[in-house]
Amino acid sequence: MTLAEKVQKAIRDIPDYPQKGIIFKDITTLLNDGELFSEVIDYFSEKYKNVDFICGIESRGFIFGAAIAAKIKKGFVPLRKKGKLPYTTVAEKYALEYGFDEIEIHIDAFKNVKNPKVLLIDDLIATGGTAEAAVKLIEKIGGDLVAAAFIIELTFLDGAKKIKELGVEVDSLVKY
Amino acid sequence: MTLAEKVQKAIRDIPDYPQKGIIFKDITTLLNDGELFSEVIDYFSEKYKNVDFICGIESRGFIFGAAIAAKIKKGFVPLRKKGKLPYTTVAEKYALEYGFDEIEIHIDAFKNVKNPKVLLIDDLIATGGTAEAAVKLIEKIGGDLVAAAFIIELTFLDGAKKIKELGVEVDSLVKY
Repeated sequence: MTLAEKVQKAIRDIPDYPQKGIIFKDITTLLNDGELFSEVIDYFSEKYKNVDFICGIESRGFIFGAAIAAKIKKGFVPLRKKGKLPYTTVAEKYALEYGFDEIEIHIDAFKNVKNPKVLLIDDLIATGGTAEAAVKLIEKIGGDLVAAAFIIELTFLDGAKKIKELGVEVDSLVKY
Repeated sequence: MTLAEKVQKAIRDIPDYPQKGIIFKDITTLLNDGELFSEVIDYFSEKYKNVDFICGIESRGFIFGAAIAAKIKKGFVPLRKKGKLPYTTVAEKYALEYGFDEIEIHIDAFKNVKNPKVLLIDDLIATGGTAEAAVKLIEKIGGDLVAAAFIIELTFLDGAKKIKELGVEVDSLVKY
């Protein structure tokens, strides 16, 4: 089995969550399998070992991003929901089905590196609203995005297109 | 310099956050330093390499917990705020200054291991309310806690005492 096939098998489908008609992709069953989880981390670590920073989106993006950062000994930068980062931030809004949400990054997150090469990672890309806001934030503070990586891509929601239109490569391990 | 001294130096003090009179310990400056962050992960990984699962508390506990789990190739189990885990959970309330909050764990988080040895990790222990709830949840689903580890302990808030009274060892890297 390829890594993608093993990961696909380890992900649990939760029908009607968070609302009726949605099949939620539960990654906790993947995280539970220590051998497979570390194989996923090794895969991305090898591929992106030359970046300067890993940015992870709160909060499942923290799980993959921090593990990759520790493995390749590069800085981990958390992108968090509005009001959660204690120092000076830049913020970016993104649309939800009803209303909007907002994520932030510390303005000095890349401060010791010139033209830092950055990998953005999250567990899943759906419509791509959060990832698009994350890309904009990283570029606002001077980051040079090498790729936006996801464990899961829901291709029918076309999120990858949004990211590619910003000139950023999308790297998804498992596609539905 | 010892690891604890290096970590202490890397943490940034944010005065009057989240409210006046509080000095917030900002770990993002530690995470930013890839060499030091990975040294912290290596330190805990070596110490707890024989556990079966690492439990991390949302969301900063995910950063340390997932990186340790990937390093020692053991399962990572997220403890999340109420309503964020998609499968069947057990929940535990804990008191805040005003009102209460609630965290959850999936009931089958340790399902393939008998009497699983578990490390609980979070970035910081203050009054210990969240950590106490986390210990209870882990024990409710059959986990045998080896230790509760923290990057930072605010000793004047006496949180460690609460955890030790539950019979669980507390392992803090930096104490204030």
